[in-house]
Amino acid sequence: MRIIVIGSGNVATHLARAIYSKGESIAQIWSFSFDNAQILAEQVSAQPVKNLSEVDRNADLCILAVKDDAVKDVGEQLADFKGIIVHTSGAVPMNVFNGTFDNYGVFYPLQTFSKSKEVDFSNIPICIESNNVETSNFLEEFAKRLSVNVQEINSEKRKILHLAAVFACNFTNHLYALAGKILQDNELAFDLIRPLISETSSKVQHHLPLDVQTGPAVRNDIDTEQKHLQLLENTPQMQEIYKILSESIKKSR
Amino acid sequence: MRIIVIGSGNVATHLARAIYSKGESIAQIWSFSFDNAQILAEQVSAQPVKNLSEVDRNADLCILAVKDDAVKDVGEQLADFKGIIVHTSGAVPMNVFNGTFDNYGVFYPLQTFSKSKEVDFSNIPICIESNNVETSNFLEEFAKRLSVNVQEINSEKRKILHLAAVFACNFTNHLYALAGKILQDNELAFDLIRPLISETSSKVQHHLPLDVQTGPAVRNDIDTEQKHLQLLENTPQMQEIYKILSESIKKSR
Repeated sequence: MRIIVIGSGNVATHLARAIYSKGESIAQIWSFSFDNAQILAEQVSAQPVKNLSEVDRNADLCILAVKDDAVKDVGEQLADFKGIIVHTSGAVPMNVFNGTFDNYGVFYPLQTFSKSKEVDFSNIPICIESNNVETSNFLEEFAKRLSVNVQEINSEKRKILHLAAVFACNFTNHLYALAGKILQDNELAFDLIRPLISETSSKVQHHLPLDVQTGPAVRNDIDTEQKHLQLLENTPQMQEIYKILSESIKKSR
Repeated sequence: MRIIVIGSGNVATHLARAIYSKGESIAQIWSFSFDNAQILAEQVSAQPVKNLSEVDRNADLCILAVKDDAVKDVGEQLADFKGIIVHTSGAVPMNVFNGTFDNYGVFYPLQTFSKSKEVDFSNIPICIESNNVETSNFLEEFAKRLSVNVQEINSEKRKILHLAAVFACNFTNHLYALAGKILQDNELAFDLIRPLISETSSKVQHHLPLDVQTGPAVRNDIDTEQKHLQLLENTPQMQEIYKILSESIKKSR
């Protein structure tokens, strides 16, 4: 099987590495930055290419792992691609490829990727969508080589999933950052709350978050809330975040 | 050593179990609810007591793990206690015991406890504070039997730590709940985002959250943000939360 990877960001990097580690070979890698294409290509024994025109039009699979707003444009520059082409975005609908390709789809690994941390693909939900049965079968089989958790999810549902992921991951990480700021401003080490962060996420692996909510807001402990708001007096935005999240917790009881 | 546990809530339960599992015996347990005192006492081979007057005044250690606003009052009812008395609260200052006891302190395990989930105490930061050197030595030695991570933290810093914990744990869990609501309203399973939640917390075990922030806000992907805000049109409070957290992420870049 000949696979092309377009992109060299977090998703492209982790996906290319996962594919390579499963014994599949990646033929070519193109990226907006040729330097980055070279760096990634070296890791997965692929050929870096400078121009999109050099991409092999007869490869079996082309994975377009570029920024959301570049998917359409880069796709159009590969319009004569004969194989199956997929993008990897949670937020871009599949029909962005409508009229440009015959066989296309989406291959969305629902995970947060940072270059500095390896991830184990085997349990990551891979959400696939495709414009015909053959493409669907191909993508399903391919995805199952990377993960035990492969799901058919249409564009409408994937959009929702992506929104939920922003709350559960991006916003959550920002709350860790705000906690870190509170600690740092008071010369306390971030290390102190790492076990707490770990346990908080571990709890919801086997329970629903509503069932394990703790803290002043869910106990309606107004006295503690008032003290906390006072401590946040010099950081009005954090005070606002404290207020709105506490209110929201109370409403969800 | 004779240990008394006052309370039967999440902290009392997990602490009593951890102490018992380390081979230390708990003499008595008192709780506002005698039924709950009995349930916990049975788990740790302790004697449940009905009235605070029955609590052995000559025990070595009394652990007051009751609600924040009950610490002072319950403490006063034990005023003739001769041993060392500690409370377990993040938000209550140590001097709540000032004038009531000779040897007192705080024993604050920085973790989130739910009855339905066992926790391994051995890595939980235990924050201790005390009113004299002998008490400090006693508490430090005792805490080290439960955890490798024992820290001297004064009331001022503990208050800050507790605030940071609200962001990193209670608010984070609520974001999981909001993500769960988004999924449920669209007939998607919470299971889909469990690996993401796990990885998000795992990332910050060895990195700082600011360095691993991902998502539309940090990329300044306004198009995706607008689409997400539209999807939240029928839930104005969640829309507000989306806006303020996105703004805050942008400010922290």
